[in-house]
Amino acid sequence: MLALPMNLDRQALLDGLQAFLRIPSISTLPEHQPDIRRAAEFVAAELRAGGLEQVRLIEGGGNPLVSAEWLGAPGKPTLLLYGHYDVQPPDPLDEWHSPPFEPTIRGDDIFARGASDDKGQTYILIQAVASLLRDTGALPVNIRFLIEGEEEVGGEHIESYLKAQGRNLGADAALIADTELFAPGLPTLCVGLRGIIYTEVEVTGAGHDLHSGVYGGVAPNPLQALAHILAGLKDPQERILIPGIYDRVRRPSPAELEAWARLPFDEEQYRIKEVDVPELVGEPGYNIFERTWARPTLEVHGIRGGFTGEGAKTVIPARATAKVSLRLVPDMEPEETFRLFSEHVSRLAPRGVRVRATNLHGGGPSVVDPDNHFIRVAAQALDEVFASQTVYIRSGGSIPIVGLFDQYAGIPSVMMGFGLPDDNLHAPNEKFHLPNFFLGMEAVRRYLEMLGQ
Amino acid sequence: MLALPMNLDRQALLDGLQAFLRIPSISTLPEHQPDIRRAAEFVAAELRAGGLEQVRLIEGGGNPLVSAEWLGAPGKPTLLLYGHYDVQPPDPLDEWHSPPFEPTIRGDDIFARGASDDKGQTYILIQAVASLLRDTGALPVNIRFLIEGEEEVGGEHIESYLKAQGRNLGADAALIADTELFAPGLPTLCVGLRGIIYTEVEVTGAGHDLHSGVYGGVAPNPLQALAHILAGLKDPQERILIPGIYDRVRRPSPAELEAWARLPFDEEQYRIKEVDVPELVGEPGYNIFERTWARPTLEVHGIRGGFTGEGAKTVIPARATAKVSLRLVPDMEPEETFRLFSEHVSRLAPRGVRVRATNLHGGGPSVVDPDNHFIRVAAQALDEVFASQTVYIRSGGSIPIVGLFDQYAGIPSVMMGFGLPDDNLHAPNEKFHLPNFFLGMEAVRRYLEMLGQ
Repeated sequence: MLALPMNLDRQALLDGLQAFLRIPSISTLPEHQPDIRRAAEFVAAELRAGGLEQVRLIEGGGNPLVSAEWLGAPGKPTLLLYGHYDVQPPDPLDEWHSPPFEPTIRGDDIFARGASDDKGQTYILIQAVASLLRDTGALPVNIRFLIEGEEEVGGEHIESYLKAQGRNLGADAALIADTELFAPGLPTLCVGLRGIIYTEVEVTGAGHDLHSGVYGGVAPNPLQALAHILAGLKDPQERILIPGIYDRVRRPSPAELEAWARLPFDEEQYRIKEVDVPELVGEPGYNIFERTWARPTLEVHGIRGGFTGEGAKTVIPARATAKVSLRLVPDMEPEETFRLFSEHVSRLAPRGVRVRATNLHGGGPSVVDPDNHFIRVAAQALDEVFASQTVYIRSGGSIPIVGLFDQYAGIPSVMMGFGLPDDNLHAPNEKFHLPNFFLGMEAVRRYLEMLGQ
Repeated sequence: MLALPMNLDRQALLDGLQAFLRIPSISTLPEHQPDIRRAAEFVAAELRAGGLEQVRLIEGGGNPLVSAEWLGAPGKPTLLLYGHYDVQPPDPLDEWHSPPFEPTIRGDDIFARGASDDKGQTYILIQAVASLLRDTGALPVNIRFLIEGEEEVGGEHIESYLKAQGRNLGADAALIADTELFAPGLPTLCVGLRGIIYTEVEVTGAGHDLHSGVYGGVAPNPLQALAHILAGLKDPQERILIPGIYDRVRRPSPAELEAWARLPFDEEQYRIKEVDVPELVGEPGYNIFERTWARPTLEVHGIRGGFTGEGAKTVIPARATAKVSLRLVPDMEPEETFRLFSEHVSRLAPRGVRVRATNLHGGGPSVVDPDNHFIRVAAQALDEVFASQTVYIRSGGSIPIVGLFDQYAGIPSVMMGFGLPDDNLHAPNEKFHLPNFFLGMEAVRRYLEMLGQ
């Protein structure tokens, strides 16, 4: 373990993190609403215990936002610290080596749903500020916390809150801890994110399920129709077949592409250790960074309908549904993308069935200009704490809040995250590397100090 | 209700049928094994109570066969009566208007899983023989019962039993009550059945589920791969795209096609009332009877993998599985068909995934020569009881036992069934039309009397 300059009670921090991880605050499943509230109240209690002021749950229309502030540094900038207390569902459960909501430390890692995305990182922000305040009696900058509980389901509440606050949010920049290091030990700032639209495509055939012996040959099969539609959305070379989908895609600058080419990266190790596939696939003509950071992609997440139990049932189902998402890159727009998607789905529908596409949620892509004060200072703090030069990358994931901070509050976001590429986000055996938990706290503390100078 | 010539205690018969229907003897679900045994014992008890002899459960390797005999008519033919006591799963449960295993009489129909397929019809055979024996003290022909419990899962046990018995089965023909009237009131003999192969196609991508944001663009998606494969099995016009699949298909004789053309049939009523679809689909160039009785078809029954719960989860699943069956017509062979299927599936697999097709169970198609004594007498009995001329049809479903009786015992099958086209076989709200239950008993009794003359 690392020798850290600050005075930390490591066991108390781990106990607190584990208590946070034990709450199954799954925002995508309605039955976990009570856990969502427990998680929000846990965050509020930690902020109060840490010396933050005006700690409260902001209710109204969705999962509570937790806000807090410390504004005792007049003349200094105000940084808004953002994280989320909600998590993804843990299934498939049988692939976890320890239960997803019983945090388990093995070696230097803590395993639990939300360990990295995003409870571990949210807890870094809270405890970095709390420990600095405890150690020095004051903070070098003004701080606001805004911790949400709907990041995994589209974040409608925080969007309406930010829209209502507008330029009155009272912050000069946002610090977001929800990303990762490009490689272990390599300090990393994320300056670009893909957006997303998450859709459901429902296909309806007969008014009721039918016997495939008696009606095979006359009845439309919604599962077969879905297969035709899905196969028509993307070709086997992974090119999206939706007309117009690539029209607005903006290529990264030559300088950014060159910087990516210099990143330390072993494609074969990435294939074997991280993705764990016999072969990497993807759109021809683009390298891995472009394919995952700067090109739109389309994925099918699940297909419901018919019989999927053990054994055999000879049914032609009355309906079938697919969950399909697209990742968007600058300058794609979520609403326009859904319109193009929906029109193409309608065109692909075979005869005999009715097809309907629904847009469940979405958010635009965003790129941040790395040449601003808050990002430059962040890089300096990271350089110092990690004793290595910070790299600038993008992420293929979606953190819509970055676009919202820009759009409504007019402030830039600093994406300083401490996850690792093999943290199994949204998958079984999600983990957080504990040395990064403590290094992350140190980096955030140092960042606040340097911002206040 | 009908006035029947025989002396029946209708309420006792209905009580018995309902007791039979209450047993959830679902052979496709391993957890229902105890119910399978209860159903077998129920059948045995009814046969004993009906005066049959040598009633026993034949164990060995699968669900018990129930056998019984009455051989007190020397010099007369021996008829083997076949039915099955196992049923399909009832899901989707929420579409039933009354619980599937609480038989409910509404109007002239009894609703329950198995009401028509095949407990109601099996019960007709048992009670027709029992009532005739009770009324007259003897039977006009010799009778054997062979009631199985694996019809919905491939019938391996009865196959091995028939194979072992061979020509020593001791029967001249089989009477199978597992089909339907072509139209209400129209006496019908089924003289052709489609075969089936029931397969699972498994596609494996990465070693674990992946986040679609981080890995969309490099990781193969097994659901998308399955969609490509399924879309490549059948075109939107419902033509099967497996090379060689149509090579062995034998067209029905001109006489049979002409007879089908004379069947009373209203396509628009069939579409609206029975299939309940906006449009009938199917292979171009063939009418509805050919498409459902004399052409092979391919159906997808379910796709498992990924996330199908409420809301959103942005996962690229590690694996996905589809259940796919083909219906076979003369002279297609199940093993060869699976080989063609499996080879084509392999050819369709996109890069980056592993694909494996498994043959879960199967059975060949069969056609019976209508010009044999047992079928001619059956038609006479039906003509008389229904006061209408019997029609000869085929069925699109699969009753592999017909082929096995022919292959191993060398005996023809008489498929005299009393279901109706809208009985919702294998679907929610399966029913049996009670007047047909009593007419069916009368027809079987009359058939035995005429066979004994």
